Amino acid sequence: MSHVHIIEEVKKRGKMIDGLTDQLLPIAQPEELYLASRHLIEAGGKRLRPAMLILATEAVGGNVQKVLPAAFSIELIHNFTLIHDDIMDQDILRRGCPTVHIKWGLPAAILAGDTLYSKAVEILAGVDAPPSRIIRCLNILSSTCTEICEGQWMDMVFEGLPKVSEAEYMKMVEKKTGVLFAAATSIGGILGGCNEDEAKALWEIGRITGIAFQIRDDVLDLITPEERLGKERGSDLMEGKKTLIRIHALKKGVKLDHIKRGSSDEEIEAAVQALRDAGSIDYAMKKARKLVAQGKAKLDMLPDSKAKILLKELADYLVMRTY
Amino acid sequence: MSHVHIIEEVKKRGKMIDGLTDQLLPIAQPEELYLASRHLIEAGGKRLRPAMLILATEAVGGNVQKVLPAAFSIELIHNFTLIHDDIMDQDILRRGCPTVHIKWGLPAAILAGDTLYSKAVEILAGVDAPPSRIIRCLNILSSTCTEICEGQWMDMVFEGLPKVSEAEYMKMVEKKTGVLFAAATSIGGILGGCNEDEAKALWEIGRITGIAFQIRDDVLDLITPEERLGKERGSDLMEGKKTLIRIHALKKGVKLDHIKRGSSDEEIEAAVQALRDAGSIDYAMKKARKLVAQGKAKLDMLPDSKAKILLKELADYLVMRTY
Repeated sequence: MSHVHIIEEVKKRGKMIDGLTDQLLPIAQPEELYLASRHLIEAGGKRLRPAMLILATEAVGGNVQKVLPAAFSIELIHNFTLIHDDIMDQDILRRGCPTVHIKWGLPAAILAGDTLYSKAVEILAGVDAPPSRIIRCLNILSSTCTEICEGQWMDMVFEGLPKVSEAEYMKMVEKKTGVLFAAATSIGGILGGCNEDEAKALWEIGRITGIAFQIRDDVLDLITPEERLGKERGSDLMEGKKTLIRIHALKKGVKLDHIKRGSSDEEIEAAVQALRDAGSIDYAMKKARKLVAQGKAKLDMLPDSKAKILLKELADYLVMRTY
Repeated sequence: MSHVHIIEEVKKRGKMIDGLTDQLLPIAQPEELYLASRHLIEAGGKRLRPAMLILATEAVGGNVQKVLPAAFSIELIHNFTLIHDDIMDQDILRRGCPTVHIKWGLPAAILAGDTLYSKAVEILAGVDAPPSRIIRCLNILSSTCTEICEGQWMDMVFEGLPKVSEAEYMKMVEKKTGVLFAAATSIGGILGGCNEDEAKALWEIGRITGIAFQIRDDVLDLITPEERLGKERGSDLMEGKKTLIRIHALKKGVKLDHIKRGSSDEEIEAAVQALRDAGSIDYAMKKARKLVAQGKAKLDMLPDSKAKILLKELADYLVMRTY
């Protein structure tokens, strides 16, 4: 199945929020702080989370124009977490560009992330919607950010553990990645005027497909050539990240501890082949596809609409994408 | 004039919010993340910002019990900025304890700060007040955080500049320190039910006295013994911070560039004596006292109350305190 259609639909919505950058995140003083804050946003990104927020609004018959600042806000939160995570994971490349701490230094990167976070709250608080709905969304956004911190913490702690269970991995990626997708879809619904049951379903759809997205991300980190990946290939392996793939491989007796920062391309390639041979990559993909099926099933409670079909297509795309 | 009275009044209000820690910032999972987040809060602090928020509520006849979570939230924001600033400034000691990045490492300190930030927004969004007033306060809080980032950025950039004007310093400390005091007093008023003019006056009082507080802080960094200061004495000098004192001294021809990280106590003492002799410390204190007088004058527009008297006493205390 071709994904050209859904990619175009996502891009269309991504462009809507890109058009808001100069208005909602203008380059103020000190200029370099704002350039650093905007760096990753301008370097690219698929705008999946804002697109999902907008699609959720469409799916409940809401006003898309009014939720665009909220969609922009979700993308800022995403980029805030990327900037800080890149510091913690010592990543040097993102979206084909040097990471913020590499280009501007550590203090600047901390502040650039903090600034995006503040702006996201400010922008969401200013959305044109009933105050009680805005407060609900701010509650979702802030508790989501707390969970992202918890998830990132777990991710780092797991690196140093000899063994992590699949259940622990699932809890970690739910927090690290799932909840922000969940925040996107539920905020899109709530600001679009949905009822309580729809808000819950939209949360679940975002949460489940977000986890599937992360599993696919872990796979892509292994199988995608660096120039397409936009970051170092195999960085998860080198950092000892306890991905679902690695957890499966460990059970199968695959040895990976020799892969470290500075390992050669050949060593990475051999490790990836070992993971393939052990069926670990297939195992993870099977899990991701199962999650997507669950997520899509949750969508059935929403009234039929073009947006609902697109959300299903998008869920499929999240685990089939090649970058 | 003795400040025992106002110190006791501040402490009384500080204890009100300390009692909320286990309820509003419970030690959840992963436990270490929450221990790191709570570290500086539990290490001490004067609770000046929450006390000012509560006093502002009292001064406009609002319900103190209802604003306590907002006061707690302001203290979280303060501690979030301390954790991240300590990383950027490479400070190792705060409130007599190792800083968070020294005790838990850099990634943990970034996440601990981010977590406090999220929790602060979450808690403020949950205050028992009319939704439109809550949104207004969230707007104030988030734009305040943006300004704090701008101020911290300026502070760091200034370290590397040969010369900074007094006007530039004033703008920097307004952002770095003044606006959080302003957020405290105005949020206290707004949640307490004040009118627009009162909110503006409370903002100004917080802003001006916050700047005065920072100037006094710069002075204390020089003249307070380390065991009382709770952090390295003369750290501003060593980092090349462009304080009002240094700006004045540079104009008077005082040489300070030889003071660096690792300078001996004797070198610091000699530099401080040179600053005294040049009248630079007196100059800064005179400026701080003038600001406090301006701030107190703004309070006259509020109806007479015990809280109004206390806010005036507190303003005086901010520039007379010895730690």
